[in-house]
Amino acid sequence: MTRNNEKNNVWMTTKRIETLVDGIFAIAMTLIVLSIDLPVINGQVTDPVIWQYISNLSQQLFIYAFSFILLASFWKAHHQQFFFIKRFDSNLIWLNVIWLMFIALVPFSTNFVSTYGSHLPAMLFFNLNMLFIGIFYILNWTYIYRKNYFIKEISFEQLNMMRKMNLVLPITALIAIVITFISPTLSPFSYFLIFILKRSFKRGLI
Amino acid sequence: MTRNNEKNNVWMTTKRIETLVDGIFAIAMTLIVLSIDLPVINGQVTDPVIWQYISNLSQQLFIYAFSFILLASFWKAHHQQFFFIKRFDSNLIWLNVIWLMFIALVPFSTNFVSTYGSHLPAMLFFNLNMLFIGIFYILNWTYIYRKNYFIKEISFEQLNMMRKMNLVLPITALIAIVITFISPTLSPFSYFLIFILKRSFKRGLI
Amino acid sequence: MTRNNEKNNVWMTTKRIETLVDGIFAIAMTLIVLSIDLPVINGQVTDPVIWQYISNLSQQLFIYAFSFILLASFWKAHHQQFFFIKRFDSNLIWLNVIWLMFIALVPFSTNFVSTYGSHLPAMLFFNLNMLFIGIFYILNWTYIYRKNYFIKEISFEQLNMMRKMNLVLPITALIAIVITFISPTLSPFSYFLIFILKRSFKRGLI
Amino acid sequence: MTRNNEKNNVWMTTKRIETLVDGIFAIAMTLIVLSIDLPVINGQVTDPVIWQYISNLSQQLFIYAFSFILLASFWKAHHQQFFFIKRFDSNLIWLNVIWLMFIALVPFSTNFVSTYGSHLPAMLFFNLNMLFIGIFYILNWTYIYRKNYFIKEISFEQLNMMRKMNLVLPITALIAIVITFISPTLSPFSYFLIFILKRSFKRGLI
Repeated sequence: MTRNNEKNNVWMTTKRIETLVDGIFAIAMTLIVLSIDLPVINGQVTDPVIWQYISNLSQQLFIYAFSFILLASFWKAHHQQFFFIKRFDSNLIWLNVIWLMFIALVPFSTNFVSTYGSHLPAMLFFNLNMLFIGIFYILNWTYIYRKNYFIKEISFEQLNMMRKMNLVLPITALIAIVITFISPTLSPFSYFLIFILKRSFKRGLI
Repeated sequence: MTRNNEKNNVWMTTKRIETLVDGIFAIAMTLIVLSIDLPVINGQVTDPVIWQYISNLSQQLFIYAFSFILLASFWKAHHQQFFFIKRFDSNLIWLNVIWLMFIALVPFSTNFVSTYGSHLPAMLFFNLNMLFIGIFYILNWTYIYRKNYFIKEISFEQLNMMRKMNLVLPITALIAIVITFISPTLSPFSYFLIFILKRSFKRGLI
Repeated sequence: MTRNNEKNNVWMTTKRIETLVDGIFAIAMTLIVLSIDLPVINGQVTDPVIWQYISNLSQQLFIYAFSFILLASFWKAHHQQFFFIKRFDSNLIWLNVIWLMFIALVPFSTNFVSTYGSHLPAMLFFNLNMLFIGIFYILNWTYIYRKNYFIKEISFEQLNMMRKMNLVLPITALIAIVITFISPTLSPFSYFLIFILKRSFKRGLI
Repeated sequence: MTRNNEKNNVWMTTKRIETLVDGIFAIAMTLIVLSIDLPVINGQVTDPVIWQYISNLSQQLFIYAFSFILLASFWKAHHQQFFFIKRFDSNLIWLNVIWLMFIALVPFSTNFVSTYGSHLPAMLFFNLNMLFIGIFYILNWTYIYRKNYFIKEISFEQLNMMRKMNLVLPITALIAIVITFISPTLSPFSYFLIFILKRSFKRGLI
């Protein structure tokens, strides 16, 4: 069974799935710009009315920048992981596809939060989206590790570092979920922890 | 004529059409997220109103996940097929383009079903879209087979397996079409047969 | 001056512009699906109402398929051309960018015609878009030819064939423009001439 | 610390970030077409009404062409820069991501200006978007220069030329911002300076 399976899988290369991953990230990162609404101005269009709109825009621009940078950090982590993979199989493709499904959902979640972000359910939806991205990334990593698909050149320190790094997003998402119940508007700020935690891990502080 | 044609076709490589295929899949898979409607709330926006919206959202999220995974499975099958192709010609490009035309239609079909999915005509439209994807995939395969464009290294078992696999989608789409006339809402579930049938074929059960 | 220019242009490879071209084509081909309008049904949603909508949909689906196949044929021609190019310069990039600008305009033209296609101005806009795509493609080709950027291996017959082929689109677009003034609805059918003319050229009938 | 960092960064290649950059540019350049509004015609649809719409369309088409060409010029500059880079690190990825964030914002800015372009605040928003693209490009370049990441083969003249070229966009954006306060409608024309200035630099006139 396994041998037969292997024979059927010779066509699978990491390059293939990478093209799809890069494409979906590029599109998702560009589509979130659609979450910024163009003002629909009823009545006379005057400069003060547009200024008023621009000042209201600040929250939407913040959420745009925020989602863009989060997606970029997931893309970066994925590329780092793929550099160390020597093999691929059908199950791993499906784990990646489900992970991508939650990545491609981010433009909707961002739009949702961009419009109703001060309300608990919208923010909770966004944070759960992040949590599932984190969980499927860990499942991905665990599968590669268990199946011994990492290249031999990878060191124990690198594996250990990656294991720690993978925990950062789900932990942060869980903290964000807890904060959502206290203050939905404040909850996105908890994602800044990602950068603080990653930096601390790299410097060996934690 | 054939020789002249061959000379004119030296520029055609599978790599070229692959880039277009990967691009269209990445975009179609990301565009279906637009089929999930952001709530337009008239009157006061309160948490219970948004909760209500999220609970109504479940059907749209199911259809999103469903279309995403179907598209991913078509992409996977296409890549597997292309791994075994040694040559390409103008007719094959056009067969691929028409196939891609039905792939790129999926975000519309998904949106249609996402909005009017409980109604027979919308679900029928979606299922016919899937049927045409399946039919053009078979035409594609048959053309490659007849023209002897598969690489020599491909075994009889692999060809046989691919022939069986290619039948899975059209059969499932036909079953879904029949079920649509009984219950439109239940018809998408018939696509789970794809995974059951493919697994059975691989294990040699059928 | 020329030498200095050449030295500054070593970084330019056809691969680079190809990635952008492939990306823009994949996106434009997928975006035209947005020209198909989802029905906005006021009043009760019943099966007969949706059937009515689907029968009205036929024109929009025809225009979708039509634009998709036209774009695919431009993409194919571009790839064929690039296979024979050995060098590239800054002017050529700009000629390509302007050509791409008219390619990326196709989803709008398609949407315009899809909504107001029975009216002369909308159809004229679409046909002018096609005419400009054809003109800039010829300018592109002429520049490459004059600057001697084609590979040595290209034969006189191939150059001659390409020169003839390049005339097909502008001629067809001009015919379509004339027909628009007689019957806007019939004018898109003139593009079927593209395939008839190309086939005749290939077989040496014209 | 630095050595450890280097070891962790072996997986970073310029090819990776290039795929993302090319993808985001292709999508942003194609999405700006959505800034051209399809006419919503209330009352009877007649040819004169559509002609009227097309004549009003000229400003939106100008802004579309204008943004498309600006984005193409940024893409070209980025590719030129990357040709000369031999190494990459995590900070440089983040500088690129923030730069891309302002690139991906261009479809929104274009849409804003396309709808409210005769008003100061909309035009100012667009010009500030351009200014930030220019500033982050310079930060990018400066970082590469300071860290000695350029290839050895790069000449002093080339470095000097690139340094001058990088100043063109921010200077032009600043001029456009000043002009916005005098006449918002005229301000985009100042970007033609980009092509005049670049040509002058290349010919050594300035």
